[in-house]
Amino acid sequence: MTDPLPTGATIGILGGGQLGRMLSVAASRLGLKTHIFEPQANPPAGEVADAVTTAAYEDTEALGAFAKSVDVITYEFENIPTTALDLIETLKPIRPGREALRISQDRMTEKEFLQSLGLKVAPFADIPDDTALTAAMDSIGAPSILKTRRFGYDGKGQARIKTPSEAAAAFASMAGAPAVLEGFVNFSHEVSVIAARSASGDVACFDPGENVHRNGILHTTTIPARLSPSLRTDAILIAANILNALDYVGVLGVELFVTPEGLIVNEIAPRVHNSGHWTQNGCAVDQFEQHIRAVAGWPLGDGKRHSDVVMENLIGTDMDRVPKLAQTPNVALHLYGKAEVKTGRKMGHFNIIATG
Amino acid sequence: MTDPLPTGATIGILGGGQLGRMLSVAASRLGLKTHIFEPQANPPAGEVADAVTTAAYEDTEALGAFAKSVDVITYEFENIPTTALDLIETLKPIRPGREALRISQDRMTEKEFLQSLGLKVAPFADIPDDTALTAAMDSIGAPSILKTRRFGYDGKGQARIKTPSEAAAAFASMAGAPAVLEGFVNFSHEVSVIAARSASGDVACFDPGENVHRNGILHTTTIPARLSPSLRTDAILIAANILNALDYVGVLGVELFVTPEGLIVNEIAPRVHNSGHWTQNGCAVDQFEQHIRAVAGWPLGDGKRHSDVVMENLIGTDMDRVPKLAQTPNVALHLYGKAEVKTGRKMGHFNIIATG
Repeated sequence: MTDPLPTGATIGILGGGQLGRMLSVAASRLGLKTHIFEPQANPPAGEVADAVTTAAYEDTEALGAFAKSVDVITYEFENIPTTALDLIETLKPIRPGREALRISQDRMTEKEFLQSLGLKVAPFADIPDDTALTAAMDSIGAPSILKTRRFGYDGKGQARIKTPSEAAAAFASMAGAPAVLEGFVNFSHEVSVIAARSASGDVACFDPGENVHRNGILHTTTIPARLSPSLRTDAILIAANILNALDYVGVLGVELFVTPEGLIVNEIAPRVHNSGHWTQNGCAVDQFEQHIRAVAGWPLGDGKRHSDVVMENLIGTDMDRVPKLAQTPNVALHLYGKAEVKTGRKMGHFNIIATG
Repeated sequence: MTDPLPTGATIGILGGGQLGRMLSVAASRLGLKTHIFEPQANPPAGEVADAVTTAAYEDTEALGAFAKSVDVITYEFENIPTTALDLIETLKPIRPGREALRISQDRMTEKEFLQSLGLKVAPFADIPDDTALTAAMDSIGAPSILKTRRFGYDGKGQARIKTPSEAAAAFASMAGAPAVLEGFVNFSHEVSVIAARSASGDVACFDPGENVHRNGILHTTTIPARLSPSLRTDAILIAANILNALDYVGVLGVELFVTPEGLIVNEIAPRVHNSGHWTQNGCAVDQFEQHIRAVAGWPLGDGKRHSDVVMENLIGTDMDRVPKLAQTPNVALHLYGKAEVKTGRKMGHFNIIATG
């Protein structure tokens, strides 16, 4: 596929959560349709997609029919089973490509990849077993954090080790899953860069945002981030370095720690990213449309910031704030249509647009 | 219905064109679903709606099932058959209400209504037959314009009368349809106000836009419009006057001629309006979301302009400009997914966002 997808073409999206939902909306602005593949019934993305397939990632028949019905395939989360990708890859292009998925599905592989590009990461050690953890506690020490190599998100699959005595309990909490120990980084704040690369190799980055987390989940992103001009340039160069190394097509999120010694890469996500939601109300072209443009072989759009924005997530019972937020000046609501409120569940977000 | 519709509730929309499409997208931002009722197959709105019914307005069974499946009903165009409205009105609330539809479906009724509110309109006369036209040519004269009372849009059903000798041909072009003769208004430019009224009676207006038409179809809307502060206030007051008189719930478009003697009402549309598309990139809450909020019993949102915008329509082969526009700074594209390009067909629009 080299020509841009025309009006009426269909983008297949693996995963039907809020990211798929907002990708579908962005596709519609370009005259494109979406088809969602999602194991769970009634996914949020299905309400604004042209078609939905409800089937397991192990259902090869459903996967094949899905792949045949679309023009190109993308995904809204990185933990898609390899077998599913192997199958659909024979039928339609997957963007971003397999290499980006392979690397980001495993924290150990990801850190080694980032190091190979000359980028700084936190001290880390592979922890296949408790012997390895004992050795790593000698070299990396505490405070540190033990994380499963795979399937972690929003603080899940992580255990903090504040003192060496907590190492055994942290290891036990991994429940036998291969893990990585990460050393403590003395950072002042976290920023993220949402970067896009088109099929023709053009790169565009949104302005870095400054992130605040609560209970391991993103709480707010503030644009612009506190960054010196040189660190701002570094952040963009780091993101572009990663995109080009992966021959990446689509949007990538890069989380960075700001330290006295410069920027340290925390992690990357091969997809649209929660910390990029501010772009919906701050730019002519938002991260969702930028991703769709890249995946559809279109040129990237203008992601220049026209307004400063603070994005805040609505988690669980934060939904009780909606009636008041709906009447607050400068607030743009983005709700995900999830009926059931659960603790820690992302229900929506809002962008506060700075004016004047 | 007095409580705001909760997450997961469904808004029924009569009509599945681009306005329904953008209403569906706006509903999704509030966690609401949409169900489109549209006689033509594969409507643009269907691609981003939760459900679509393809059936004629005469299909009472389909209409009934549609009405029962939704929580409230709105529409994207005003020429819905009265019999269809009579049926669904017994099942679910219709917003905006029947009175707004009755008045705006007939140019004669509309003009009389506007006059009854003390608003200025162009000189007009009812033209049921050619005798009436002869009499009206004496009082109103030429230049003037003959328009069908019903079912006109985008310059369709209209004939200009530049000199009295053209009156007979203009009458013939009405093909027997009841018509209205409108006298020429010496206006400098046209502006429109997109106004909203909530179920609780609150009124909010977007900033007036300045419209330029080509071949009877809106070409551009520029925000802000050229208007003195007092005329700007007049424009808002006129819109609010109309909304309150109709006990209106939803978004209404009001087109106004700017003349040396003040503002003259050209026409009203009881729905979201092409000249309000700029709000998608100029405001925290756009006209589509404002309409959905009103229809769903929510409070109106903040429609304050954060950026100046120029909206331009993409008509027919204007679609050839899309590849270049996709790469133009400050441009936000909004395409409607219509596969077939036809002369005069609205295929999309774009908003140019003023920055700095």
